[in-house]
Amino acid sequence: MSIPHSQDSSETAEIGDTATEAPQTGHKVVLGVPAPMKLDSGLDLAGFTLAYQTYGKLNAARSNAILVCHALTGDQFAAGRHPVTGKRGWWDNAIGPGKPLDTDKYFIICSNILGGCMGTIGPKDTNPATGKPYSLAFPVITIGDMVNAQKLLIDHLGIDQLFCVIGGSMGGMQVLDWASRYPDRLFAAVPIATAARCSAQNIAFHEVGRQAIMADPEWRGGDYLAQNTRPERGLAVARMSAHITYLSETALHRKFGRALQDRKAITYGFDADFQVESYLRHQGITFVDRFDANSYLYITRAIDYFDMASEHGSVAEAFKGTKVRFCVLSFSSDWMFPTYESRALVHGLNAAAANVSFVEIQTDQGHDSFLLDIPDYHRTLTGFLNGAAAHRGLTAK
Amino acid sequence: MSIPHSQDSSETAEIGDTATEAPQTGHKVVLGVPAPMKLDSGLDLAGFTLAYQTYGKLNAARSNAILVCHALTGDQFAAGRHPVTGKRGWWDNAIGPGKPLDTDKYFIICSNILGGCMGTIGPKDTNPATGKPYSLAFPVITIGDMVNAQKLLIDHLGIDQLFCVIGGSMGGMQVLDWASRYPDRLFAAVPIATAARCSAQNIAFHEVGRQAIMADPEWRGGDYLAQNTRPERGLAVARMSAHITYLSETALHRKFGRALQDRKAITYGFDADFQVESYLRHQGITFVDRFDANSYLYITRAIDYFDMASEHGSVAEAFKGTKVRFCVLSFSSDWMFPTYESRALVHGLNAAAANVSFVEIQTDQGHDSFLLDIPDYHRTLTGFLNGAAAHRGLTAK
Repeated sequence: MSIPHSQDSSETAEIGDTATEAPQTGHKVVLGVPAPMKLDSGLDLAGFTLAYQTYGKLNAARSNAILVCHALTGDQFAAGRHPVTGKRGWWDNAIGPGKPLDTDKYFIICSNILGGCMGTIGPKDTNPATGKPYSLAFPVITIGDMVNAQKLLIDHLGIDQLFCVIGGSMGGMQVLDWASRYPDRLFAAVPIATAARCSAQNIAFHEVGRQAIMADPEWRGGDYLAQNTRPERGLAVARMSAHITYLSETALHRKFGRALQDRKAITYGFDADFQVESYLRHQGITFVDRFDANSYLYITRAIDYFDMASEHGSVAEAFKGTKVRFCVLSFSSDWMFPTYESRALVHGLNAAAANVSFVEIQTDQGHDSFLLDIPDYHRTLTGFLNGAAAHRGLTAK
Repeated sequence: MSIPHSQDSSETAEIGDTATEAPQTGHKVVLGVPAPMKLDSGLDLAGFTLAYQTYGKLNAARSNAILVCHALTGDQFAAGRHPVTGKRGWWDNAIGPGKPLDTDKYFIICSNILGGCMGTIGPKDTNPATGKPYSLAFPVITIGDMVNAQKLLIDHLGIDQLFCVIGGSMGGMQVLDWASRYPDRLFAAVPIATAARCSAQNIAFHEVGRQAIMADPEWRGGDYLAQNTRPERGLAVARMSAHITYLSETALHRKFGRALQDRKAITYGFDADFQVESYLRHQGITFVDRFDANSYLYITRAIDYFDMASEHGSVAEAFKGTKVRFCVLSFSSDWMFPTYESRALVHGLNAAAANVSFVEIQTDQGHDSFLLDIPDYHRTLTGFLNGAAAHRGLTAK
C-alpha cells in the first residue's frame, strides 16, 4: 500500500517507538493533501494536522496494529507519561508489556480526534482563511469524520488491515463506525461502554455543559482566543456536571458518602463542606488547564449526532455481511451507557449474523469503569484479543 | 390553644377559604414575635413573615388539617391557579373535592418554606439591619428550621394536632423531620419520593447548580438585587441540570427520543436541533422568571445538610416510641430518590416499632412522578388517608 496524500511532520518518522517514561511529544501528520477530506456536513477539510502516538512495534507483515479510539476528554497519550499533565496516560493500565494491549505483541496507535485540542486540528487552531483561530468557524464534525481522518492515518502508516479497533464511550462509537464504514480494514472490534446511538438523556447532559460554557461571558460568542480570554468558569461547570454521570451513585457513596472536607462539622455556608463538593470543584478546576472550551462544544455535538439506525436504516443494516469479530463490553453500574444499550447493539449485530461475544462486567464503578483496572474486565480483553490473534495468525513479537 | 407570638397580616384572617379559580394572594403571618425563633445555625430569626395558602375548611374540632410540604422549587400555591404563573398549582391534581386530598373532608395548609421566594422570608427580602436585601447575609437554614417555622404557623392557626403532614422530595424530608421533632402534633405522615438523608450524588448535583449560579458574573457575589441585575443564565443552567434528574431516561426517551425540533435534518450547528434540547432550554428560561437565585442556593444547601441518622444517632432513634402512622411511597424509576432510600427509611421505622405501610409505585416517569396523576399513586394516597381518617374518627364535612 502506498502512503498517499499525506506528509509526516513528526520529529521521527520511524514506525515503532516504544513507550517510555520520558515525556513524548508524539507524531504529527498532515492529511487531506492534495485531495481534501469530505466532511459529513458537506464541507471539505484540506491539509489538516492529525496528532498521534504509538506504542510497541509494527511487525513485518503490518498485521499487529491496534487502533485505540479515545473518549470525549481523552487524547492520543493513552500510555506512558502525559507530556502536559505529567500523569500516566488515560489507559496506561491496559497498554504495555504483559498488559491486555500487550506492546510486546501489538503495535498500538492512538490519535487525537478531529476537533480535539491536543495537536489534531480543532477550533482552537488557526484558520488559514483569516489568520485567526477558527473558533465557531470550525466545521461541525461527526464520529464518521473522526473515523475518516483516522483511516487516512492508517493509510499513511501503510497498514492494510488493523488487527483491532478498540475504545470506550465515544471511543466505542468510533469503533462501531469503523466496523460499519471500513469492514475490510479491521479484523476485530471492541466497543466498550457505548451504544449505537446517543440517548436523549446524554444529549440533555451535553446541552447543559454547552449552555454552561456559552453562558460564560468570557466565551465571547466563541471568540475568546482572539480576545485573549477563556471561559474557565463555564467549562468547569460543564466538567462538574459531566463528571457526575461518569460515576455510579454507589461509587460516589463509597468514595465520599456524606463525609466532610477537612472539618468536624457543617459550617452553615456555601464553602465545600462535603468531600464530594471539593472533589467536583477540583475536577472542574483542573480540567480547564488541559481542555479547550470550543473543542468541548464540538465533540459533545459529534456524540449527539451519532445514530447508526438513523444513518443506515437499522443497526443490523449497518453491519450487513460483516466478517469483523466483535467483543461488546458493558458495565453493570454504567447509567450513562447502560447495558441495555449494548444489548440492543448485540441484537443488531446478531441480526447481521456477525461474530459477536458480549460480556457485562459486574462492578459498581459506573461509566468510568472502562478506564479502570478491573480484573474481570482486563481478563476479558486479554482473552478476546488472544483468541482473535490466534485466528489472525499473530504470534508474540 | 392560644395563638402566641404572632400577628396575622393576611387580607382575611378567616380560616377556611375554599380553592377557587380566581388568583389568590394568600395569607401572610408574622412569626417569631416577641420571642425569636432559634435556627439550627444558632442564630435568631425574629419577626419574620411566613406566607401560606389554605384549601377546604377547618372543622370545629380542628382535627382535619393536612399540612402539605412543598419541594425545592414549589411554593404555597399547591392548588387552584397560581397568581404568578397563571398555571394550575403544582399539586392541583391531588388537592380538591373528590381528589386524594379531598377539600370536602380536609383542611389543607401549604406554606412557602423558610428561605423561599414566594412571600416567606428569604434572601431576597430586606434586611432590617441594613435596609438592603439580605442576599448572603441571610442565615443558612435547615429542613428543621423550615419545620420549626411551620410549627409556629400551626400554633398560630390554633391546631393542636395535624391530621397529616405530607410531601414529596424535599417536602418528604420536612414530613420526616415533623414526625421526629413533633410526634404529638401529627396523627399521620406521608413521606413521598424522599430519603432520611441527602445522598452524595444529590449533593453533587446541587453543587453543580450552585456553581453555575455563582459562576454568572451577574450574581455579583450574591448582591445582584442591590445592584439591580440578575444571574439569569447561571440560574437557567442550574435548572436545566436539575431537571434531568427529575425524569427517568425512559421518560426522556419516550417524550423526546432523538426527535428533531421543527426541522427535517440536523443542522451541523449549536442551535437546539433536538426536541430534548429545546425542552431543557425552555425549562431554564421560564424558571428564572419565577425563582430567586439566592433562594436556590439556600434551599439546596438545606437539603444537603439533611441527615437524620447523623442528627439522632440512627433513623430508628429519630422515631423512637412514635405513635404516628406512616405511609412511605417511592417510585420505581426515581433515580434521584431511589426506592432503596425509602426501604432504608422503612427499616429504621420498623426498628422503632412504628406503624408503617410502604408502597413502591411502578412507573417509568422518574422522580417527577410525585407531582403526576398516576392512578396507582393517587389510589394509594386516598386509601391511606381514608383509613387513617377512620382511625382518627374523621367523617366527611
